[in-house]
Formats: sequence, C-alpha cells, structure tokens
Amino acid sequence: VDARSHARSLSPQEIDAFLAEVRLAHLATVDGRGLPRVRPVWFLWDDRVFWFTTRIRQRHTGRDWAEGGEVSVSVASDDQPYRAVIARGRPEVVGRDEGLLSAVSSRYLGGRGKLWTTEALRQPDRVVFRLEPATLISWDYGSLL
Amino acid sequence: VDARSHARSLSPQEIDAFLAEVRLAHLATVDGRGLPRVRPVWFLWDDRVFWFTTRIRQRHTGRDWAEGGEVSVSVASDDQPYRAVIARGRPEVVGRDEGLLSAVSSRYLGGRGKLWTTEALRQPDRVVFRLEPATLISWDYGSLL
Repeated sequence: VDARSHARSLSPQEIDAFLAEVRLAHLATVDGRGLPRVRPVWFLWDDRVFWFTTRIRQRHTGRDWAEGGEVSVSVASDDQPYRAVIARGRPEVVGRDEGLLSAVSSRYLGGRGKLWTTEALRQPDRVVFRLEPATLISWDYGSLL
Repeated sequence: VDARSHARSLSPQEIDAFLAEVRLAHLATVDGRGLPRVRPVWFLWDDRVFWFTTRIRQRHTGRDWAEGGEVSVSVASDDQPYRAVIARGRPEVVGRDEGLLSAVSSRYLGGRGKLWTTEALRQPDRVVFRLEPATLISWDYGSLL
C-alpha cells in the first residue's frame, strides 16, 4: 500500500470494472463528538455514483450520514492485482427505493436478496443514500507490490 | 452487512484468527478541517494490538495520526464466511522498528518484503504506530447472509 507514491491511477473504465467486483466499501464519518467512525457497507457503483443503504435510527453511521456531513469511502482489493479507490463527498438521502434495495441486496446475497429486500422495505428508518464523489482517487499497484 | 443486528460477536480466539488472515484494514481519521478521511492500510494484529506503518509527512493520514487523535479501524471479509471487526483508539508512535517493518511487509509482500523494508528504513518520516483498541466490536454473519 505504501508503494502508492509510485502507483498509477486507474482509468475511468478500470474504476468502473474494479467497483463492479463484489467487495465491501468502508465508509467513514465523523460522529457527534468529532471522532472518526468507519464501518463496512454494501455498495453499488452505477454511472459514476455510489449507492448505499442503511438504517438511520438503528445505525450510528446512518445518523452521521443523515446529518448531511461529508463522508469518505475506501474500497481496496485484498488480493492481486492490488487496486484501491478512495472517494469523498456529501451523500444525499434518496428514500426507500425498492429497485435499488433489490439491486444492492442481490449483488451481495444473490437469490436470498429478495427476502432481505422484503424485510428492508418494512423498516421505517431504512434509506438509500446516493454519493456523487466530489473527489475520487485511485491506485493500481500492479506489479509494484 | 445489515444483518448485523442478528449477528453474533466473534470470540477472542476467532478475532485473532480472523485478523491473522492477510487482508487490509481501512483506517479512518478526522482531518484538520474536521472531515473524515479513510484509506486502506497494512496491519499486524499481535497480542491484541494493531500495528500499522505510514509516513507522517508524505501521507495525510499519517499526519492525522501523528497529531494524536482517535482513529477508527474497519476490517471485513469480502467472501464467506462474512466477518468484520471495528476498533477505535488512540495510536501511539513507536518509531522505525525494523522487526515490525519486516513483519508487516513480509505479511503482504512475502519475499519481496525485504526490499520494501530496506527502502522504508531510509525514509526519515517512516513510523510504526501501535493501536491498543479502546473499543472493539465484531460480527460473524455466518449463515445469516
């Protein structure tokens, strides 16, 4: 990872391909006391926008997001070829969109995503967030590591 | 990931086994403007303590760490069985310990870690951080997802 000063950036097409792989994002927020908070989250990357879902009452991170502050997102491959994307921006709440909940849950759960979506639609505080990155940086460590 | 409200915690032995697997940690800090920053980092988990390394002048996150604030760390498996660990605490700078630099670079780079360590020892701002978690939470999603 520290080889990144020598690493090249990914092209927009490579970023799309990398973020299409099923992998978690790690989403960082600042809590009410000004301290960092991070957690793994499911995500979809579609048309250069991140989509996330959480519950805004039951999840600390969800509360932090709903307050409208900036978030930072990190996605990295644990296996070769090593690649990483870090993005920052201000997420917007979209509401409980069934299509998006289905898309994200089937990405991570396959056929069992349907059951998850049914349950999620019953949760009154379930929301979808849209994050258009204000900044996005990427690395392809390629053969450097 | 949202099934975590039903997930059980990992036992201390399971946490040790999970964090022994070669995987990146995602380390979140708060920058000078009060905004969240997150990046993937190499880590070692030894005797219930995280060890990280970075450069404190060349890396934004390194500067944030060196200022002594609290950090938050997220480690999660992208593949089944799905597990995750999130820890928070205040890292301490340990200096450029050759043994630790070798241990962490060989974990991620195998035999090529030696070359990396040689280069790292030449970097004047290269440091090792020790993070004893003030809080640590874990999930084993097991068959829930």
